[in-house]
Amino acid sequence: MCNIKVTIAYDGTNYHGFQEQRGTRFTTVQGVLEERLFRLAKVPVQVVGAGRTDAGVHARGQVISFAATDWPVPVERTVYALNSLLPRDIVALKAEEVPASFHARFSATAKTYRYTVYNGKWHSPFHRLYSYHVPKQLDLNAMREAARYLEGRHDFSAFRALGTPVKTTVRTLYQARVASEGDLLYIMLRAEGFLYHMARMISGTLLRVGLGKLPVCEVAGILASRDSLKGGPTIPARGLCLEKVEYGGENH
Amino acid sequence: MCNIKVTIAYDGTNYHGFQEQRGTRFTTVQGVLEERLFRLAKVPVQVVGAGRTDAGVHARGQVISFAATDWPVPVERTVYALNSLLPRDIVALKAEEVPASFHARFSATAKTYRYTVYNGKWHSPFHRLYSYHVPKQLDLNAMREAARYLEGRHDFSAFRALGTPVKTTVRTLYQARVASEGDLLYIMLRAEGFLYHMARMISGTLLRVGLGKLPVCEVAGILASRDSLKGGPTIPARGLCLEKVEYGGENH
Repeated sequence: MCNIKVTIAYDGTNYHGFQEQRGTRFTTVQGVLEERLFRLAKVPVQVVGAGRTDAGVHARGQVISFAATDWPVPVERTVYALNSLLPRDIVALKAEEVPASFHARFSATAKTYRYTVYNGKWHSPFHRLYSYHVPKQLDLNAMREAARYLEGRHDFSAFRALGTPVKTTVRTLYQARVASEGDLLYIMLRAEGFLYHMARMISGTLLRVGLGKLPVCEVAGILASRDSLKGGPTIPARGLCLEKVEYGGENH
Repeated sequence: MCNIKVTIAYDGTNYHGFQEQRGTRFTTVQGVLEERLFRLAKVPVQVVGAGRTDAGVHARGQVISFAATDWPVPVERTVYALNSLLPRDIVALKAEEVPASFHARFSATAKTYRYTVYNGKWHSPFHRLYSYHVPKQLDLNAMREAARYLEGRHDFSAFRALGTPVKTTVRTLYQARVASEGDLLYIMLRAEGFLYHMARMISGTLLRVGLGKLPVCEVAGILASRDSLKGGPTIPARGLCLEKVEYGGENH
């Protein structure tokens, strides 16, 4: 029995999210991966993903893991074997054998998401699938100030859509940064974990601040309210990308 | 009667090139533009494009012109009116009224094309539609040296596919530059005009040099041979983008 960790990137445009949904016929990233791994392993393989990205959300550094008895491909050939079978919008970047205790989701200690805003007057046809278009001028300094209020260990209920029940809505947001490069604006969020829609709702709140629709001083109050009607809005999935997943001390 | 110049950008992935082809049912950029302009003008409008980009070739600064009697939209509203009708992979950036003598193709004095190569080990799902994947290491210095041999006024027959007959195959290539940024490599070509497939065949030749398959010293000989079997290969359309069209002294 061996346990394999694979880092992947995908364009989420044509997928109904990462996670396979029983009883539906939507194409998911997990579904495509399991189908291709089945072709290699000749037995069913169950894939776990570190982040359950929504429909349309992208990934540059998603991590998956799966256990396989008699995995027929040497681990150093696994990336080649997978890429020869995967559609071109999903790419395997790295494969490693990991201890049996490793679980892509439960072992993760931090995740980084990046939200991309296209801030030019007209949306770029080249960024239209990978960003959210905001033609109005944004106050970056105000957005940066607001982001600092959100960093730290907080109950993020105000930035959570109802979804799968969770034990706790407290999370540590290690970093919330706003950067710009030409017409592109990036919101980088690094946290120990994210609640459902949390990255998009935080990004939506920061955009309201940037547009002058929400004073910076009200952000702490929204966080404290723990009221999801006050946080947000949940801005479009296509702007979001799972950049990186970290695994504590063992540095997997 | 007024003559209007519009600068546009498009993702060429889903188009069978810029130019409308009689007797086919392929979707072209020109076809879509004429159909949308017809909706605005209520009379047929014939569009001329500066560059007849091939199927799959993109544009960030294509220029079109069209003449219209009773153009119903004030020129400063034309961009808004067009973008409200265009599909999201074609965007109007700027509209100007120009003298009746202006012709998007014949008045152009220089065009700049950029060819993008993705030089990472695995192709990026985000660049797959906008670049050509070359996983092997490239010798940039050799490519730059080869590019210098091509600059200037030459008969570019060796870098021309058979297409529409032309009066002369002599063109001035003002600049041929090779730049890199992370995993992306760009070949920038600025010329008074381009022969059919010239930008892709020059890029293909420079890549052969970069891969060590063609010695730099042979490039001048290929140019001198005027033999299109020696230039090239014609590398994929998706890597090519029409960046800019210039219009001489009047600075349109």
